[in-house]
Amino acid sequence: MSAIPSTIRPVDDPALLHKVQARLDNLTKPPGSLGRLEEIVRWYCLARAEFMPELPRKVLYVFCADHGITAEGVSAYPSEVTPQMAYNFAGGGAAINALCRQFEIEAAVVDIGVAADLDPSLPILARKIAPGTRNFAHEPAMSRAQAEQAVAIGAELARQAVDAGATLLAAGEMGIGNTTAAAAVSAALIGCKAAEVAGRGTGVDDERLVHKTAVIDRALDARAPDAADPIDVLSKVGGFEIAAMAGFYLGAADRRAPSVVDGFIATAAALAAIRLQPALVGYLLFAHRSAESGHWRQLEAIGARPLLDLGMRLGEGTGAAIAMGLVAAALRTYREMASFESAGVSNRS
Amino acid sequence: MSAIPSTIRPVDDPALLHKVQARLDNLTKPPGSLGRLEEIVRWYCLARAEFMPELPRKVLYVFCADHGITAEGVSAYPSEVTPQMAYNFAGGGAAINALCRQFEIEAAVVDIGVAADLDPSLPILARKIAPGTRNFAHEPAMSRAQAEQAVAIGAELARQAVDAGATLLAAGEMGIGNTTAAAAVSAALIGCKAAEVAGRGTGVDDERLVHKTAVIDRALDARAPDAADPIDVLSKVGGFEIAAMAGFYLGAADRRAPSVVDGFIATAAALAAIRLQPALVGYLLFAHRSAESGHWRQLEAIGARPLLDLGMRLGEGTGAAIAMGLVAAALRTYREMASFESAGVSNRS
Repeated sequence: MSAIPSTIRPVDDPALLHKVQARLDNLTKPPGSLGRLEEIVRWYCLARAEFMPELPRKVLYVFCADHGITAEGVSAYPSEVTPQMAYNFAGGGAAINALCRQFEIEAAVVDIGVAADLDPSLPILARKIAPGTRNFAHEPAMSRAQAEQAVAIGAELARQAVDAGATLLAAGEMGIGNTTAAAAVSAALIGCKAAEVAGRGTGVDDERLVHKTAVIDRALDARAPDAADPIDVLSKVGGFEIAAMAGFYLGAADRRAPSVVDGFIATAAALAAIRLQPALVGYLLFAHRSAESGHWRQLEAIGARPLLDLGMRLGEGTGAAIAMGLVAAALRTYREMASFESAGVSNRS
Repeated sequence: MSAIPSTIRPVDDPALLHKVQARLDNLTKPPGSLGRLEEIVRWYCLARAEFMPELPRKVLYVFCADHGITAEGVSAYPSEVTPQMAYNFAGGGAAINALCRQFEIEAAVVDIGVAADLDPSLPILARKIAPGTRNFAHEPAMSRAQAEQAVAIGAELARQAVDAGATLLAAGEMGIGNTTAAAAVSAALIGCKAAEVAGRGTGVDDERLVHKTAVIDRALDARAPDAADPIDVLSKVGGFEIAAMAGFYLGAADRRAPSVVDGFIATAAALAAIRLQPALVGYLLFAHRSAESGHWRQLEAIGARPLLDLGMRLGEGTGAAIAMGLVAAALRTYREMASFESAGVSNRS
């Protein structure tokens, strides 16, 4: 489908990389001593294709959607929490709101498939594809056209954000049941059993985790998503917010804007997006290692090493928001530090 | 000596802890899902002895001093870099300056023992005890009175900062040769060989690392510091900045202000300070795991689990500055998030 970006340029410019590294090595510090902050600088400059980028202008979209699979009893919270939390985002009372205020990130909320009519007077972008997915234990979560539509909407929102000035993007999510969908998408794309990727989500107990895992394995057998076709996977066992986030990363990269990937749900979306466009991976920074147990398996499949490990498992983009603060900090050192020469500091003896 | 704080109250208030935890669990998120951010909130509230503290007012002091031990050829950079970097701090061109600007931390620079007369017109606090320590390969680094003076100066600066409104403190350092002194202090206090705590510092090669380790072991034999007497250890093989930082943490805690501990040098200082006043440990947050190889051994001796692991090894307080940003973020979620009741969000089913 043409709305899915297919023009992402690989991040591969040895001359620019050399120039950035030379500047890093001439700043008043021992070479490499800022560790992963220096890695972030290289990543950001290469993604932006700029030697001296401005400090990032940071935007984070929270995609909200419901999941038919909750009918199988896979979540610790009822589905009504999805619209309630959408209102909480709109009112500024959620964790992601506090973190976006702290790290100067512009936040937006998107209804991509909440199973309730949300108050149109609230600052929630209305992009509802359907009032929740269908129960993928019994039928495909959505049609192929709906999956493509969700990807396209995510891509378009990211492109619009970049065109309006954003240079660093992130996506968060809210959707009761979405760790089940994300685990199913991941297991399908990786080709592993549900037990390797399914975790406790918002907090199911041992018994319900066994049940959740069995539900996913049975659904993967019954729906038989094609691992070579990420849209097929997203449509059969995914979620509207997961598909939209996949598109969001692609749309941002299509405009040469890097994205910070949050935790388990976001990494499922990133995995699908990378399978659609392998060049995307150079535009992504993986924010943190989620406490959701299957996250390591997704990261391993991508070959990603996350920046932080704070035991977080909330979603909403909360890990990404913190990592965006670190990206800004890294760029700040790169832009503002003196060189050995300008500061009159002696270099190594 | 009376200038060394001896009145630190243990952080131990089960009633306050229960109240803080109850609030954390009633915010609109699954219990514990903000991971270590919630741990930070508990730590900060208990150290401050407040249920609802204001967002932290953050102050970071960079202590600069020279080291006689550099005569033994233990460092990759010449000693003249210490005053040069002090000027760089005063001019705002170092990594710590950029990070303090990013995370809204007030920064101050202290000459506690630089081996050069610094320009008095620059914003550098003049607290010079002596122009560098003596070479502890051949004689004690400083007198006992000087060690006590350095601790007292650090404590007084911290108390003044708290009295002026600071609520979250950190110390950084600059001193060519100070990984050697910090390793010697750590080995003496832990009771281990230099090889367990000595690392490459600003970047010595294999051969010089072997030499550095041997210099430390010989000096520990010759100086024979008393592990049960941290002031004796600091005076015989320490540094002015290390002693001042130890005092700084104690002075802050004496005023119920928590401190964020940076990397290898800072942790050597914290270890000495905890040995002086074990109750101090409750007031300290260990910012990051330094890439300096001996840092894990110090952290193990304290029983601390650092917050970040970013491969940093610069010192100056750079890791602490980033962690201070996370402390502010954690407090922001605690202060500003809605409760299930106030946001009308359903709790667990």
